[in-house]
Amino acid sequence: MTGTLYLVPNTLDFGMSPTEAGARGLPDLQDVLPLGAIRIAARLPCWVAENAKTTRAFLKRVNEVVPLVQPLQAITITELPRANKGAEATPTGSLHALLAPALGGQDIGLISEAGMPAIADPGAALVQAAHTLNVRVEPLSGPSSLMLALATSGLNGQSFAFVGYLPVDGTARVARIRELETLSRRAQQTQLMIETPYRNAALLSALLSALNGNTRLAVSCGLTLSQGWNRTDTVAAWKARPASIPNDTPAVFSLLA
Amino acid sequence: MTGTLYLVPNTLDFGMSPTEAGARGLPDLQDVLPLGAIRIAARLPCWVAENAKTTRAFLKRVNEVVPLVQPLQAITITELPRANKGAEATPTGSLHALLAPALGGQDIGLISEAGMPAIADPGAALVQAAHTLNVRVEPLSGPSSLMLALATSGLNGQSFAFVGYLPVDGTARVARIRELETLSRRAQQTQLMIETPYRNAALLSALLSALNGNTRLAVSCGLTLSQGWNRTDTVAAWKARPASIPNDTPAVFSLLA
Repeated sequence: MTGTLYLVPNTLDFGMSPTEAGARGLPDLQDVLPLGAIRIAARLPCWVAENAKTTRAFLKRVNEVVPLVQPLQAITITELPRANKGAEATPTGSLHALLAPALGGQDIGLISEAGMPAIADPGAALVQAAHTLNVRVEPLSGPSSLMLALATSGLNGQSFAFVGYLPVDGTARVARIRELETLSRRAQQTQLMIETPYRNAALLSALLSALNGNTRLAVSCGLTLSQGWNRTDTVAAWKARPASIPNDTPAVFSLLA
Repeated sequence: MTGTLYLVPNTLDFGMSPTEAGARGLPDLQDVLPLGAIRIAARLPCWVAENAKTTRAFLKRVNEVVPLVQPLQAITITELPRANKGAEATPTGSLHALLAPALGGQDIGLISEAGMPAIADPGAALVQAAHTLNVRVEPLSGPSSLMLALATSGLNGQSFAFVGYLPVDGTARVARIRELETLSRRAQQTQLMIETPYRNAALLSALLSALNGNTRLAVSCGLTLSQGWNRTDTVAAWKARPASIPNDTPAVFSLLA
């Protein structure tokens, strides 16, 4: 019988070990993950991960709630092939190889560095390969930074889009921000985006420069972390009362024109 | 001190009581909700809900995991004003009245009929009012049918849009489907939509008629339920191997052209 590919949500604190997490006041695993998901994670013999190191840290935290069925060193963790810019997509053959254990009857976990796998990360190709091979795919409930940020923003949750990262080049970035503002106004659609944390301040600054004063902008920074915060204001109000945004904490930016 | 507005995720089984849920093989509350969220829900004295009846059913299930701090009959549950088609948006005054307990120091829970509040439901206006009144907003992790469906689809999770319901009128519906297909192709953006369950079959049929054969279509039906299923295929493959879709179970439809 073919195994199942479980989509296992990770915490939003980037795989810090329990000790580091405790020291930084980070939430316990059970604050963000259902016991049902933790139980399934504790019995999976085989993982495909965005990052093997953070997956081991995650499994140590799982083990503190539900003992792992196998010792950590007996659990197989394979990293997803990294996408190289400009390179072709991951060859189908290597994705099929990652799913070979499922064809042999083992269940597999797919896990991201943070939040839901296959969303805002490279995992979707593996899920697509699972469908092609008729491997059953089962998603587990857990935190999604995009949905937490959207709900917290108070912006339109009945029509929204996630557009990933904006261009790094300044001119292209301004053009893209204006394009998103136009799209948002036309369809009353909230536009969500993310940035590498060390560029958070630069993105906020670019958004405040390029957007209209009455466009609403929401920032959710450090979701589920004790030092997390969120703010929704018009661009004019953000300019009148500037915020400093940390360069080491993930943030989600949302706008509605 | 001002209270906090907690955004409390609900299960995806539409508030059936534990007995009904057990009889239908539905998941236990802890299969989909983190203990941290259940603990907070158990102590909230005051709720704003899309539906009071399903909120009471939810609180009974919470009570089976973590005893409610107050008896159910002492907990205040106020329904969000219903949006009438063509009517004006909910007056700001009535939203501020719903938040009065928070200004008086009490914590409030906002809860939807299923999944994350303020997403694909009328709750965002209350969150916006909370921002206006400087009431702290804290989202709790839990299931989101849209993110579970997207992750499970294997379609593009790095760029996606949720567009809500399609028009009911046949001609307008076909036009909207073709518009979404064009948008999807141009931006390589997965388009997600939902439908009232009794119209699931009609929507699937309309999608299969209007979309190109090589557009990929995913259906996630009954997410987190034991009878749930998901399928991703090209439109041509859906036509070659038709599926029957139940008319009493929520479904999420996703396409990528």
